[in-house]
Amino acid sequence: MPDSSGPVVRHFQQELDELKQRLLAMGGLAEERVVAAVKALVERDPAAVRAVAEGDAPINRLHLEIDTRAFTLLALQQPMAVDLRAIVAAIKINSDLERVGDLAVNIAEASARYLLHPPVKPLIDLPRMADLAQSMLRDALDAFVRSDVTLAQAVLDRDDLLDFLKNQIFRELLSYMLGIPSKIEPSLDLILISRHLERIGDHATNIAEDIIFMVSARDVRHMGAGSPPFLP
Amino acid sequence: MPDSSGPVVRHFQQELDELKQRLLAMGGLAEERVVAAVKALVERDPAAVRAVAEGDAPINRLHLEIDTRAFTLLALQQPMAVDLRAIVAAIKINSDLERVGDLAVNIAEASARYLLHPPVKPLIDLPRMADLAQSMLRDALDAFVRSDVTLAQAVLDRDDLLDFLKNQIFRELLSYMLGIPSKIEPSLDLILISRHLERIGDHATNIAEDIIFMVSARDVRHMGAGSPPFLP
Repeated sequence: MPDSSGPVVRHFQQELDELKQRLLAMGGLAEERVVAAVKALVERDPAAVRAVAEGDAPINRLHLEIDTRAFTLLALQQPMAVDLRAIVAAIKINSDLERVGDLAVNIAEASARYLLHPPVKPLIDLPRMADLAQSMLRDALDAFVRSDVTLAQAVLDRDDLLDFLKNQIFRELLSYMLGIPSKIEPSLDLILISRHLERIGDHATNIAEDIIFMVSARDVRHMGAGSPPFLP
Repeated sequence: MPDSSGPVVRHFQQELDELKQRLLAMGGLAEERVVAAVKALVERDPAAVRAVAEGDAPINRLHLEIDTRAFTLLALQQPMAVDLRAIVAAIKINSDLERVGDLAVNIAEASARYLLHPPVKPLIDLPRMADLAQSMLRDALDAFVRSDVTLAQAVLDRDDLLDFLKNQIFRELLSYMLGIPSKIEPSLDLILISRHLERIGDHATNIAEDIIFMVSARDVRHMGAGSPPFLP
C-alpha cells in the first residue's frame, strides 16, 4: 500500500530477497579477494598483493549497507519465525563475510613479507587450501539463498580436509625451518597464511551452522552439549 | 498478564535484563578460561592445560541458552529501536564469546605441545597480552550492560597495544629461532598463542563496536567507508 508520508511499502519477501542478493554479492567479493591474495602470492606479484591489502573499501561499504537493510527489515516489518531467523542469520553471515575480507588483507600482508625472500618451496597445498575454503564459502552462501540444509551440512563435512592440509603444510615447513635457517622467516609467513585460510573455512562453517538453524530451527552447534531442540 | 495457555508473560525489560546477566556470566566464563589457559602455560602445569582444552561444555551450553533467550525475546516481544538493537547485539556478542572460548581451547592445545619442550624463555609478554585481552573483554561486557559508549570506545583504543605486544613477541622469538634450532618448534607454539590472544582482543573490539551501534545507532566500523548514519 503506498504511503504518502514515506517510501512505498515494499513487499516483505521482495525486500528479503534483495537482502539475500546483496549478501551473495558480499560473499562474491570476499571470495574474489581471497582468491586474488593467494594468486598474487603464488605468482609473486607485489602489485597484486598490494591491491588486495589496500582494497577492502568496497566490501566494508557493502557490510554496512547489508546491516542497514537487515535492521530496517527487522524494525519495520517485525517478521516472525523462519523470516526472523533468516534476517538474524543475514546479520551474522554479514559479520562472517566481513571478517573473511579482513583475512584476505592479512593474507596479502603476510604475502608482501614473504615476497621479500627467495621462495621457500613451490606452493601446492596453500592454493589447495584456498580453493577448498573458497568452495566452502560459496556453498555456504548458496545454501543460505536456497535454504538448503543438505548443502550446508556438506560444508561442515569439508572442514576436516582443510584442517588436514593445514597440518601437512605445518609439518613440511617445520622441516625446512629446522634444516635451513634462512627459510625460517618466510616459512613463518606461509604458516600464518595457512592459518588465515583455515579461519576462512571456520567462517564458512559458522555460516553453514547458522543456515541449518535458520531453516530447521535445529541447533547443530555443540552437538552433545545437552541442549533441547528449540523453536522460537 | 497471566495466560492460562502458557507461562506467565514476564515484563520485557526484566527478560532483557536477564539476557544481559546471562551474557555477563558467559563473558565471565570465557575470561576465566583464557586466564586459566595462560596460567597453566606459565606454570607448566599439564593437568591444568588439559582441563582447559577439555572444559568447553559449560560455555557451549550457555551459548545455546543465550541464543534461545534472545530469539524468543525477538519473536514474542517484537521490540523496537534500541531494544531491538540490544537483542541483536546480544546474539552477536554471544557468538564472539563462544569463539573466545574456542580460542582458550586453541591456547591450551598449543600450550600442551609447548610443554613437551624445555622452556624457550621466561614468559613475560604473553601474560601481559592475556591480561590486556581479558580487561578489554571485561570492559566490553560492562559497556554492554551499562550501555556505556565511552567505555566501549576505551576498549577500541587498547587494541593497538595488544598489536604492539604481539609484534614484540614475534621479533623476540624469531631471534631465538634463528639462533637455536631446538627452539624453533616450541617458539612456533608461543607465536601461535600470541595470535590467539590477539584474536581475543579482536572479539572484544567487535563487541565494543556492536555496543556503540546499539546505543547510538552510530556505526563506527569502517569509519571513512562513506556510509550514511543509520537509525532503524
